[in-house]
Order: sequence, then C-alpha cells, then structure tokens
Amino acid sequence: MEPRPYHHGDLRAALIHEGLRLLEEKRGEEPSLREVARRAGVSATAVYRHFPDKQALMAALAQQGLQQLATVQNAASDSVGGGDEGFAATGRAYVRFALAHPALFRLIFTSPVLAAVREDGVLDSDAGALLYANAAAFAARAGGEAHARAIRAWSLVHGLAMLMLDGQIPADEALIDQLIRVQKQA
Amino acid sequence: MEPRPYHHGDLRAALIHEGLRLLEEKRGEEPSLREVARRAGVSATAVYRHFPDKQALMAALAQQGLQQLATVQNAASDSVGGGDEGFAATGRAYVRFALAHPALFRLIFTSPVLAAVREDGVLDSDAGALLYANAAAFAARAGGEAHARAIRAWSLVHGLAMLMLDGQIPADEALIDQLIRVQKQA
Repeated sequence: MEPRPYHHGDLRAALIHEGLRLLEEKRGEEPSLREVARRAGVSATAVYRHFPDKQALMAALAQQGLQQLATVQNAASDSVGGGDEGFAATGRAYVRFALAHPALFRLIFTSPVLAAVREDGVLDSDAGALLYANAAAFAARAGGEAHARAIRAWSLVHGLAMLMLDGQIPADEALIDQLIRVQKQA
Repeated sequence: MEPRPYHHGDLRAALIHEGLRLLEEKRGEEPSLREVARRAGVSATAVYRHFPDKQALMAALAQQGLQQLATVQNAASDSVGGGDEGFAATGRAYVRFALAHPALFRLIFTSPVLAAVREDGVLDSDAGALLYANAAAFAARAGGEAHARAIRAWSLVHGLAMLMLDGQIPADEALIDQLIRVQKQA
C-alpha cells in the first residue's frame, strides 16, 4: 500500500473522520486502529503516533461528536433568534442529532469525555453541558429552581432520544416538534 | 455433578433467578446458558428444555424485569394513595429501579420484549407501558394533549435514569425527589 501524504494535523482529522464513519457503519461496534488506518490509507504505525490505543481514538471521536452536537444546537437556536424559542430548538436538535448519529450519540454519553470536559470547566465546547447551561440560563430567567429545571430539560430530551433510538417510541419528526416546545412554567 | 431435583415450573423460575443474578454480576454481559445451568445446579440439557437458546433466556429475563418494575411502581403509587402523587411516585420508583438494577434496566429497554408486549395489548404486565398508561390517565385528567404529556413524563424519568446510570448526573436520592414531583400544568 502506498501511504498517502498527510500533514500532521490533517492526518489526525482524517483518522477521526474515518473513525466516525466506521463507528456508524458498524452500528456502534468500536472500530480498530488497524481498520481506521486502512480506511485513511496509512500504516498502523502512522495511526499510533496520534492515538496510542483504541481508548484514545474513541475519546477523540466522542469529543468530535460533542463539538458536532454543539454546532447543530447553536445553529438551531440561532435560526429562531435564540431566547426561549432558541432553547426549545436546541432540545429538538439534540434528539434529531441522536437519531441521525445513533452510534456516536451513544458513544458520547457512555464515554468519560463528557464528564472530563465538565470538570475542566470547558462548558462551551461541551454540547451536553451546552444544553445544560442553556437550560440553567432559561430556568434562571423563568425564576427559581434553576438547577432542577435544567436537569429536567436535559433528561426530557435525553430520554426521548434514547426511547426513540431503542424503538420504544416511534422516531417521528412531528412528535419531536410536538413534545419539545417552549413550556409555560407553573 | 448431582442434579438437584426441580419441579418443571420451579426449575424455570430458578433459571430466571440465577440468570438475573449473573446479569448484574457480569455488569450487563449476557450470561451463557451453560453458566446459568451451573449456578442452578442442573445440566445444560435441562436448561435447553426451558430456553432453546440465549435469546429465549434473555427475553424471559427482560419480561421478569418488566414485572418487577411494574411491582415496585404499583407499590410506590399505593404507598401515597395513588392519584397525581401516586403518578409522581411511579416516576421516582422507575429511576430508583434503574439505579438498583442497571444491567436489567438496560436489557428491558433494548430488548424487543417491551414492544412485543405492547403489540399484544397486555399493558398491565408491561411496566414501561404501565408508566405510560398512568401518564396518559394523569394527562387526561389534567386535560388536553394527553399523548404528548404521557411521552414527556416517560422521557423525563427515562432520561434521568440513563444520565445517572452513565454517570452524567450524580445518582443522588434527594435529586430524584426534587426532580420528579407533581407538576402544575400550564
């Protein structure tokens, strides 16, 4: 096999890209470093330079997934002008992201990456925490009990995503719109 | 190994009991029919009479888990006299069941048993549907949008359970009480 020429940073990005594709193709079964190398057209040795073991690769995939989720949430909020409508839009985007990328979504929430990011305080790059932070801001504006409302909002969208992914509730676009709307608080 | 004497129905119950214990001990890794046989002190052949393959055993474990969940939910509702308070109590019981039996909880919601039970219309023996039916009754009393409220209630407790199981939110008893209460509907 003729190795393709990559700049250092480009190869890392290419490996993550191929890793994400393999993860979805294999329906969540973790790709090996060897498979990722083959897909990227490089040697296993080249991969080890960026990811010493599979755990390192999976952590990078989860981190990349978080960034993608944050991006679609931000775009969804911006598209309706932010505010309370924007917050509801981030919730719908969260569920739709899960349905579009089931293996990546499960990886994000079973990997230690999310917790590690949160402990670092890097909330902006953390989509779970992004939703959570948005929820807290929303709840604070609505008055009282901010923490509980933030976790309730996150739990609602996470539970809906999981029940749809596991086939317990139909993965119905209109249902997502109906369920996640701006709620008047009692 | 001297086989223990079992009546037919007793052996099936014993195999399910040992299967559930193994499932939690192995943190969700599915036990083999051979392991279950060893634990129950019978031959593999005796097991095959009840469960022709591992899928049959896992389906029986999921079904048994659903019945256990229904039992704790009913007891929780009864303990506060039913009604709206009882419905909130079934939600808290749902999350606590997940935390106490993580592998069984995941098995229930990733197995086809729940969907099969629902299609049969046997809602009473189906704890997921039990919660759902309770939610629908609650929403119907509260007026309007019953279906959406039922799914929202289920999603909230399911999401909270999953986020706690996956370590994203602390598995905190007081937090469960705080989050799942009778909510005034807007």
